[in-house]
Amino acid sequence: MLRLRLAAAAWCSAPRRPLSVSPRRLAAGSALKTPKGTRDHPPAQVALRDRLVGTVVACFKRHGAAAIDTPVLELRETLMGKYGDNSKLIYELQDQGGELLALRYDLTVPFARYLAMNKITNIKRYHIAKVYRRDNPATTRGRYREFYQCDFDIAGQFDPMLPDAECVKIVHEILSDLQLGDFLIKVNDRRILNGVLAVCGIPESKFITTCSTIDKLDKVPWEYVKNEMVGEKGLSPEAADRIGEYVQLHGGLDLIEQLLQDPKLSQNKLAKEGLGDMKLLFEYLTLFGITGKISFDLSLARGLDYYTGVIYEAVLLQQQNDHVEDPVSVGSVAGGGRYDGLVGMFDPKGRKVPCVGVSIGIERIFSILEQRVEASEEKIRTTETQVLVASAQKKLLEERLKLISELWDAGIKAEILYKKNPKLLNQLQYCEDTGIPLVAIVGEQELKDGVVKLRVVATREEVNIRRENLIEEIRMRTSQL
Amino acid sequence: MLRLRLAAAAWCSAPRRPLSVSPRRLAAGSALKTPKGTRDHPPAQVALRDRLVGTVVACFKRHGAAAIDTPVLELRETLMGKYGDNSKLIYELQDQGGELLALRYDLTVPFARYLAMNKITNIKRYHIAKVYRRDNPATTRGRYREFYQCDFDIAGQFDPMLPDAECVKIVHEILSDLQLGDFLIKVNDRRILNGVLAVCGIPESKFITTCSTIDKLDKVPWEYVKNEMVGEKGLSPEAADRIGEYVQLHGGLDLIEQLLQDPKLSQNKLAKEGLGDMKLLFEYLTLFGITGKISFDLSLARGLDYYTGVIYEAVLLQQQNDHVEDPVSVGSVAGGGRYDGLVGMFDPKGRKVPCVGVSIGIERIFSILEQRVEASEEKIRTTETQVLVASAQKKLLEERLKLISELWDAGIKAEILYKKNPKLLNQLQYCEDTGIPLVAIVGEQELKDGVVKLRVVATREEVNIRRENLIEEIRMRTSQL
Repeated sequence: MLRLRLAAAAWCSAPRRPLSVSPRRLAAGSALKTPKGTRDHPPAQVALRDRLVGTVVACFKRHGAAAIDTPVLELRETLMGKYGDNSKLIYELQDQGGELLALRYDLTVPFARYLAMNKITNIKRYHIAKVYRRDNPATTRGRYREFYQCDFDIAGQFDPMLPDAECVKIVHEILSDLQLGDFLIKVNDRRILNGVLAVCGIPESKFITTCSTIDKLDKVPWEYVKNEMVGEKGLSPEAADRIGEYVQLHGGLDLIEQLLQDPKLSQNKLAKEGLGDMKLLFEYLTLFGITGKISFDLSLARGLDYYTGVIYEAVLLQQQNDHVEDPVSVGSVAGGGRYDGLVGMFDPKGRKVPCVGVSIGIERIFSILEQRVEASEEKIRTTETQVLVASAQKKLLEERLKLISELWDAGIKAEILYKKNPKLLNQLQYCEDTGIPLVAIVGEQELKDGVVKLRVVATREEVNIRRENLIEEIRMRTSQL
Repeated sequence: MLRLRLAAAAWCSAPRRPLSVSPRRLAAGSALKTPKGTRDHPPAQVALRDRLVGTVVACFKRHGAAAIDTPVLELRETLMGKYGDNSKLIYELQDQGGELLALRYDLTVPFARYLAMNKITNIKRYHIAKVYRRDNPATTRGRYREFYQCDFDIAGQFDPMLPDAECVKIVHEILSDLQLGDFLIKVNDRRILNGVLAVCGIPESKFITTCSTIDKLDKVPWEYVKNEMVGEKGLSPEAADRIGEYVQLHGGLDLIEQLLQDPKLSQNKLAKEGLGDMKLLFEYLTLFGITGKISFDLSLARGLDYYTGVIYEAVLLQQQNDHVEDPVSVGSVAGGGRYDGLVGMFDPKGRKVPCVGVSIGIERIFSILEQRVEASEEKIRTTETQVLVASAQKKLLEERLKLISELWDAGIKAEILYKKNPKLLNQLQYCEDTGIPLVAIVGEQELKDGVVKLRVVATREEVNIRRENLIEEIRMRTSQL
């Protein structure tokens, strides 16, 4: 123990490994599980996830975003009062003396805290990390208590809708790059929604609850929604019908123009602002050439009183004759919007930093890709080893070690079996099992001739390569892999 | 709110963003900090860390390792009884109903839990992730309560010292690749150390405490160590001197041979085993050609009763005329060893899975690299943007958006200023500030001529490129960057 404490003191954060384990303190076998709603990621999952995250990050970087990292732990008071009723889902740490801590619930509140704390008024950043929710998720459907969020946000005071349009473009690029099938990006603006409710004579006190009903329109028919409005939310049938005339609308520029001419709506200041910006957004998205997959949808509400302007949500569309996905798996895979008020909540002087962002549902997308891989029976390699250094006869361990050391030092990804005298068959089998494409076989004769026998696992083709050319040959043969 | 709950239920892990923020529940300005011992990583730090991690991961993959991920949360009982006195440094979560949880203290115990839980008897894995310790770290010296660990481990029953030798080779490769200056890898074996103490007549009950004293030999002279042994640990001066004759020794194969001939030590079974394996290790390291930086050092102990065999630790050596590092910053940057008992602690039947691993001190190395960067005044780019799409005159926003959209779709990393009519000077200044190497300038004349003016920020050279050749030109000019 003492050693390690000394170590810590003298060596800053030198690698610290576990200490003094005495068999007396065996862990109970009962501990052999991960906490509820959490999971280990075995190599195959990490490999697939890396592929997914790689595609997403490439897009974020293509748009000039920088990465930041914030602690998993936040002060309890930083998170409290940010998530409404959901605050009860926040993991709190035991009071072990000192500050009261909690695990982050998402990446957006820490981002706002980071901006206010560092007085940053202008940044384009992405952040991919785990967040924590004491939920009761259906892990069978890929939902967990510890899960990754993948956020891209643009903070700063800019000309209208330019960052907003880029966020929508990013969603379009990522979903296209990932080839998840057909998708639709619904857009709306909370100011338009508020305007609609206002001109339909709904008291502001009923906005939120009414919107949560409207929000169901993507799952249930209007009649159901109307009944809930009248029956549960206490709206008059006439008011409900007036709302219905609006929220069942969806379209593009034409619809925006039509609503800008709407005698009632055009009189509402908020709605007019929202429609003006929506028009601008569509003009920009037209220049990006992506309006084909954009739908201005007045029923889209999202987390309403969190957003202050444009909101959007990408959904995958059910495909005909697609046996990979079942209906359940079709749903929202990205969403976001403008939130100009959050950062100001952390600034002592309440200084606002306008923000717009998008969250890519990588857990959702990950489980879709997992289904795809299973269906396609594609075997994902969990390692990148290019060549196994094998021996044809016994007593060649030294030669194997000399050769593999040369390969490592040349940057070749290489493995050997950790056996003094492995059977050639076992060595070849290992390549089959792990997908290693090449085997460099050292044998007595080859050593005499100054060559190495290079075997292509897939074709079983074998060629003798002069030792001095081996590295080049391996590079050449694996460059496409 | 309802919307989001519905969403969660119906859409699996669709992106979930913060909810209902009402200005009434403003966070206190006092919350504007990260928890004690934690920190945000701004873009420049993340960029430098990515560079470092990239080098380390490249080495792990070169050696055929796969990546796994485990939850930050573990069952309390999984961690308890694994860290001796340090268990008091474990962060525990509040009992909010359900399981008692804690934050992982390192990556090794979760790894052992993972192996036992999944009955994995054979894996080569790396894991780079944050761990948590309720320590009182000197954050001024780069130590934190939330920090990254970077572990590579080989689990499985193999022929002696082959995986062990590869771990040492990996440390050698990583420290060489990172160009941290001269370094030394000390190796020892806990069986040799136990043997030494036994033949010096030390009762087993005093092994641990004596070792923690011996361990100080790398910081203080022998006299100090001897005094502590005699004064504090109650050893006889003679016994202390006998120990001194051994633990002050360090060397290579020659020393191993000498100790194998040692009349006393050669009679001790444990010591003999350890020396035999140490000889084998040196033979393998000789084949790897790295013995020049290896020292068999009998004073190296590390977390003694955790390790069961070979142990090693890499230290940076103080360099002459090196103004970058101060003496304090010289120390251990990697360490590890063989631990054959840990996995068995989790297996109900106590089945053992021999393991050997190494932990790279990336926090330590990161702070060294940070010092280097500061000293060198190298400006680290936080983004990878290749080109800024700029305009020479007003009213060219549409053209800028059309062009940048083409570039994004072609995979070019491009940005624009989010202004309708930005001044050319401001656009050029933005490139200077963020290190963007190229500017694609659209102007009225260029549009007429079907060209784009490409400006090299560094040289201020400007060339007109035909629009259809622009993407190729940008790729060509940024391929080396």
